[in-house]
Amino acid sequence: MSADIKTGLQLRSLIKKNGELEISLVNVPIAEPAADEVVVRVEATPINPSDLGLLVGAADMTTAKATGTGDAPVITAKVPEAAMRAMAGRLDESMPVGNEGAGVVVKTGSAEASKALLGKTVAMIGGAMYAQYRTIRASECLVLPAGITAAEGASCFVNPLTSLGMVETMRREGHKALVHTAAASNLGQMLNKICLKDGIGLVNIVRNPQQAEILRKIGAKYVVDSTSPTFMTDLTHAIAETGATLGFDAIGGGKLAGQILTCMEAAANRNAKVYSRYGSNVHKQVYIYGGLDTGPTELVRTFGMTWGLGGWLLFPFLQKIGPADAMRLRQRVVDELKTTFASHYTQVVSLQEALQPSHIAVYGKRSTGEKYLINPNKR
Amino acid sequence: MSADIKTGLQLRSLIKKNGELEISLVNVPIAEPAADEVVVRVEATPINPSDLGLLVGAADMTTAKATGTGDAPVITAKVPEAAMRAMAGRLDESMPVGNEGAGVVVKTGSAEASKALLGKTVAMIGGAMYAQYRTIRASECLVLPAGITAAEGASCFVNPLTSLGMVETMRREGHKALVHTAAASNLGQMLNKICLKDGIGLVNIVRNPQQAEILRKIGAKYVVDSTSPTFMTDLTHAIAETGATLGFDAIGGGKLAGQILTCMEAAANRNAKVYSRYGSNVHKQVYIYGGLDTGPTELVRTFGMTWGLGGWLLFPFLQKIGPADAMRLRQRVVDELKTTFASHYTQVVSLQEALQPSHIAVYGKRSTGEKYLINPNKR
Repeated sequence: MSADIKTGLQLRSLIKKNGELEISLVNVPIAEPAADEVVVRVEATPINPSDLGLLVGAADMTTAKATGTGDAPVITAKVPEAAMRAMAGRLDESMPVGNEGAGVVVKTGSAEASKALLGKTVAMIGGAMYAQYRTIRASECLVLPAGITAAEGASCFVNPLTSLGMVETMRREGHKALVHTAAASNLGQMLNKICLKDGIGLVNIVRNPQQAEILRKIGAKYVVDSTSPTFMTDLTHAIAETGATLGFDAIGGGKLAGQILTCMEAAANRNAKVYSRYGSNVHKQVYIYGGLDTGPTELVRTFGMTWGLGGWLLFPFLQKIGPADAMRLRQRVVDELKTTFASHYTQVVSLQEALQPSHIAVYGKRSTGEKYLINPNKR
Repeated sequence: MSADIKTGLQLRSLIKKNGELEISLVNVPIAEPAADEVVVRVEATPINPSDLGLLVGAADMTTAKATGTGDAPVITAKVPEAAMRAMAGRLDESMPVGNEGAGVVVKTGSAEASKALLGKTVAMIGGAMYAQYRTIRASECLVLPAGITAAEGASCFVNPLTSLGMVETMRREGHKALVHTAAASNLGQMLNKICLKDGIGLVNIVRNPQQAEILRKIGAKYVVDSTSPTFMTDLTHAIAETGATLGFDAIGGGKLAGQILTCMEAAANRNAKVYSRYGSNVHKQVYIYGGLDTGPTELVRTFGMTWGLGGWLLFPFLQKIGPADAMRLRQRVVDELKTTFASHYTQVVSLQEALQPSHIAVYGKRSTGEKYLINPNKR
């Protein structure tokens, strides 16, 4: 970073009390690094579904309008009245966005550990990554091995650690196989690679034949389509074959989480000898970790009384398992960054391009197979 | 039991493959007691909501018809087509009913422990209590203290241990106060007495002012009415005051379980300093332990990601805590049988009367305040 660069662009998302979302680029001062900090020039930062929640909030993006100029674009959209209560905590607060990213260390604090990073390509997590520069503690930087680019390392944390976290949760809670929804996603593909490598049964639930094909091509054995008329039978069969009693659901709304529990119960009862009106004594668990469908979750409780449903989030999970185990998972990500944990992007855009309505229309849909990477220093 | 009595009436519930429910009284041989068993003349056995699930299953009791004779009544009713799948495990199997009861030991096996019970009034759990006689292991009998009648001891297990189990679960899972629904029930009143005695915050959710009045009369401090226009505000306020982060829901269907989680989250966020779109990091848990509403559970997920919902059942819970702790809870029930754990019945009926449509219409509604006791030896 040449000495004369004191500011950089940062993407901001603001929801006003009047129900208007405003996304814009703001020129902000680059925070001087403290002794234990470094300044990273961000070169790659993905748009994950988990980023969209903060980026667009509860706004209805079909109402989005572009204003501002080409260099300083502004997007506005309306948040429906009914959704404003859920936004109460962030009203009138201009918020930076972007969970993870990677880039080059261009300036450092005085500590040796900080200085050692100068010029290195590092991966980061911690928010505010949709920015040209990010000041961050050196200890929070993951140095990427030689030969790994910022683009290759930009998605080092969220999807890799989430998919590893699912397998780790399975082992810790005494299950032996998994069910996963929206299974053809980047994360879902990683989960397949992990399960194939580790010999774990995985039942993939997708929503169309194209997604099924994506997974079969990478070797997935159990793929069921929730839009098929034989879905419930197919799912029960795959669950019985694998012995899956734990599911991770990215969708959240609708009937799917309950259908998974129902099919787990049906599989458990296949060999039941005694009738119990409370259902089997096999514990069946589904964790909702995303909200691709933000509508209500509907449980038709035909799965007995031995079940659980809950929220699952990466960071509380990492805290629960503690730093040693968290580091073990992180190390596996680095070791397998070009294989198991490789991410594929369909578009690389600048900050300005990320605010073009035509792009928002694509990444805002959260479609499987569409994955954006922002390069905030793209010219 | 005089030597010539070899048989006794037993109530049976049968759901046929053609979708017909048949409830009848069958004259069955009284099983000879093995060395470690006794025969109990059942004099009191309650109709709990948990019994109705087996007694009427998924049948639509508005279609009930009485046939048979006065001494041998038969009730038939139709099970809706859509509900038959859930009945698959019990089709064409004539099932005895009645979880718990009390009576007098009239015959014993040869073991000393069995012989010691002759003539004693005992409480029992284990099914098939809607019968004139029940052969059971001596070790499973709870001898009632002098001065306690069979009617007073008939509900020794299900409601008392369930309400104690809720408080025990609260302590074990690190919560400090409780929310309870259908709170004016017999069980709910017991829970109030326990919480008042033990100094535990309890938020009672009821469905009308009469139920609220029942609870206020026994000293309940927090009573909120789910039919009030200010329900969500009232519930949030009561949760904030008590610090309740654990709920037990007897209703199951509808929006209530989700509303409890939403109000817990709102209470947790009252003092939040930082916005997190994943919600508070306070763990909020609701257990569904009944199904007064058998319709779908609808969760409007406005309560962040740190939450759990699940089934809760007494017997798996008792197994989990182990025999020593289970015995401690059981002893407390006996010690406080005339106070904390006193049950109140609105009707005492014979087996034949229990099969009269006019009575079924009342107890089948599972109404708060209506509680039936069967005396199978009533003349």
